[in-house]
Amino acid sequence: MSLWFDDLSVGDRFASHSVGIDADSIKTFARHFDPQPFHLDEEAARDTVFGGLVASGWHTAAVAMRLMLDGGFPVSGGMIGTNADLRFLRPVRAGDELHVECEVLEVAPSRSRPDRGTVRLRCNAINQRGETALRLETAVIVLRRGSEETAQV
Amino acid sequence: MSLWFDDLSVGDRFASHSVGIDADSIKTFARHFDPQPFHLDEEAARDTVFGGLVASGWHTAAVAMRLMLDGGFPVSGGMIGTNADLRFLRPVRAGDELHVECEVLEVAPSRSRPDRGTVRLRCNAINQRGETALRLETAVIVLRRGSEETAQV
Repeated sequence: MSLWFDDLSVGDRFASHSVGIDADSIKTFARHFDPQPFHLDEEAARDTVFGGLVASGWHTAAVAMRLMLDGGFPVSGGMIGTNADLRFLRPVRAGDELHVECEVLEVAPSRSRPDRGTVRLRCNAINQRGETALRLETAVIVLRRGSEETAQV
Repeated sequence: MSLWFDDLSVGDRFASHSVGIDADSIKTFARHFDPQPFHLDEEAARDTVFGGLVASGWHTAAVAMRLMLDGGFPVSGGMIGTNADLRFLRPVRAGDELHVECEVLEVAPSRSRPDRGTVRLRCNAINQRGETALRLETAVIVLRRGSEETAQV
């Protein structure tokens, strides 16, 4: 299933498969982008408010993006965000499994560009206990059917 | 310079050093988290609306986080975000250099936890031409001076 702007309506819902988050990926991301003790090392993380290793919120957001592309928001021709509002609701720990569920909140054809529109959506990254770890509201540009001949996004 | 909650006032400003964003790091991030043509491959990217390789917005956000830790928002004891509002204003291309400039918008001591407070701040990730590529508004938990004896965050 891969959809164009024309296929989307307010209230449409999609869900991705699940992926596991392991300690190695948490630490690798943290070393590059968020080197704080509670993201880098189990031992150091134990004495923090998290009581153990947790994923950077930016890592969780990046995983959520991947899951959106992999079925959470299955659009054709690319997904280009213009803004995003993130709520970090629960820590993500090594061994957690996340999937995303997205709902279309608003669809607005572009006034100036006939080949595209903006879609506002809410996506939740949900763990294996059914808890939402991250809530993401974002506006993305989505192409209209047929636009692949005039613009490739 | 490394500050506690007590040291921060509305209007305080901080700036990080600059880092370069190269094509390899753009593609590596994209392969893991945002595998779209305009993030993966110069050739494929040429025919997209970006006209060339650009960094994933999530990559730019992660780099901004690193720059905040490295001087853009120099707080002691860790920085834990509760939410973040991102505006993707301009593409980030291979060869760009980014730094962040942050301004404190609001400081609020916690009512229930005497060892911490919440700081709302706006950080801009700015390229070598002085253009803001990403605007980030976020609320983060910051520890009060002396709290390292009772809570390590």
